[in-house]
Formats: sequence, structure tokens, C-alpha cells
Amino acid sequence: MSQSAYDDQNVFAKILRGEMPCYKLYEDDATFAFMDIMPRADGHCLVIPKHPSRNILDVDHDSLAAVMRTVQKLARAVMKAFSAHGITVQQFNEPAGGQVVFHLHVHILPRHEGVSLRPHTGEMADKASLEANAEKIKAALTEG
Amino acid sequence: MSQSAYDDQNVFAKILRGEMPCYKLYEDDATFAFMDIMPRADGHCLVIPKHPSRNILDVDHDSLAAVMRTVQKLARAVMKAFSAHGITVQQFNEPAGGQVVFHLHVHILPRHEGVSLRPHTGEMADKASLEANAEKIKAALTEG
Repeated sequence: MSQSAYDDQNVFAKILRGEMPCYKLYEDDATFAFMDIMPRADGHCLVIPKHPSRNILDVDHDSLAAVMRTVQKLARAVMKAFSAHGITVQQFNEPAGGQVVFHLHVHILPRHEGVSLRPHTGEMADKASLEANAEKIKAALTEG
Repeated sequence: MSQSAYDDQNVFAKILRGEMPCYKLYEDDATFAFMDIMPRADGHCLVIPKHPSRNILDVDHDSLAAVMRTVQKLARAVMKAFSAHGITVQQFNEPAGGQVVFHLHVHILPRHEGVSLRPHTGEMADKASLEANAEKIKAALTEG
């Protein structure tokens, strides 16, 4: 394999350890979900495994299965929370594959008919909208 | 849920039943993998569950876990087969989410530094290149 080993100083590892803040949405034994702070659509969120893994190429089967169960749970919640018409799921591996943070993560993007994803600007969304969108998703998760 | 029910006349259901041809790469009890005939990168392939499911919103946990195990297997194989630098994984749900065929499928796209994905042209790749790329992937799968 050409990819490098896991580096526990990545931003998502710091979020898991509570060393960095995040807009948390959901957590279970194996997974953690939170808002993407540079959302390409309102409600854009991320699911990660708790067990260290760099990406799809090295993740263990149990973590991957758990991550996808949480992706489904969040996909259903954001459909409801944003009255979305669809969901785009993306997962990037290695820099050439689009990966920027080297802890496995799955993007969940609520979509509406005729609305394109916003470009990557590298700018963080404002705190109020991230908080409001996180609250909508958490409410939808609670309602089930 | 706003999405429609499963329609067993979709193209991937026909491929699973052997009613339509495909460039098959891999099969196990729960999953099936084959070439995308409108590849956005050389080696672009698809993984689907055998059990009918429309997309991430309705798939059962076991099928989803099995699909992702096969996605990992194929991702590793295409990395090797195409000396790729990375992998982009995409999974589209409902038309607004980018879904065109309504049987759950995961796209695996081998990526190289500095090479963008080709646009969707709606044109099928030539048979010879699809066959040659399928052979490369099957060889990489066999080597393990």
C-alpha cells in the first residue's frame, strides 16, 4: 500500500479526544457524527469511526459497517430535517482522492432538486447557522 | 420517507438476473461488482447488493455492511491495478442526490494526482478498454 500510516494528530482524532470543539450530532460505541464546518449544502455532516483508521483502504470491517449504519441514520435524519429531496454521500481516500483530513470520514450532503453543491471555499460557515442546522438534525434523530 | 419503492425493472436488477450483460469483476453471497460503462476515470467500477434496495435510505444493515466490505476489496484492487494515488467513493440517493439507477450502488473511482474526473458524457466507453480494465482489476483481485 502506498498510503502513509495513521497520524493521531489529525483534526478528527483531536475532536474524538475532546481536544478540539465540534458541532456534535450523534455518538455510539463505534462512531461519531458532527457538522462539516465548511458545508457544501445546509446540513452537510460527517460520520467517523472511533477506532483509528486513515481511510477506506485500511479500515477494519466492523468499524466500516458501524460507520455506514450511522451514515444511514444521519441520511434519514437530514432528509427529514431539511425536507431534502435526496442525499449525496462522498468518501475521499488519499490526497488524489480528495482526502484532506486523514481519519476516515463519510460526507452526507442533503440535496434539493435544481440546487448544486456549493464550491469548496475553505471558509467556515457562521456559528449561528451551524448551530441551528445541528439542532434541526438532532431533533430529527430524536424523533426517529 | 418521500422516495418511491423498489422497481425490479431497473438496469442493475436486470444485470443481477442475467437479463443484461455487464463487465463483471467480483461476486459473493451478498454483493456484485462490475464496470461502470460510462467511466469518469479508467477503472471506475460499481458495487451493488444482491438484495433489492433502492438506496442508502432503505437498505438493510447486513447488505450495507457487505457492500462496503466489497467496496474496500475493490478499492484496494483498483489502487493496485491502475497504480492509483487515491480513491473517490460516491453514492447517490434519489434524483436530487445524483441517483439515476434505482438499485443501491457505490461508485469506486481510481484517482491520480492532478487528474480530474472526466465529466458525465452519457456515452459508453469502448468495449476493448472496458474489457482490458476489467481484466486488470480481476487480476489484482486474484493476487489479493
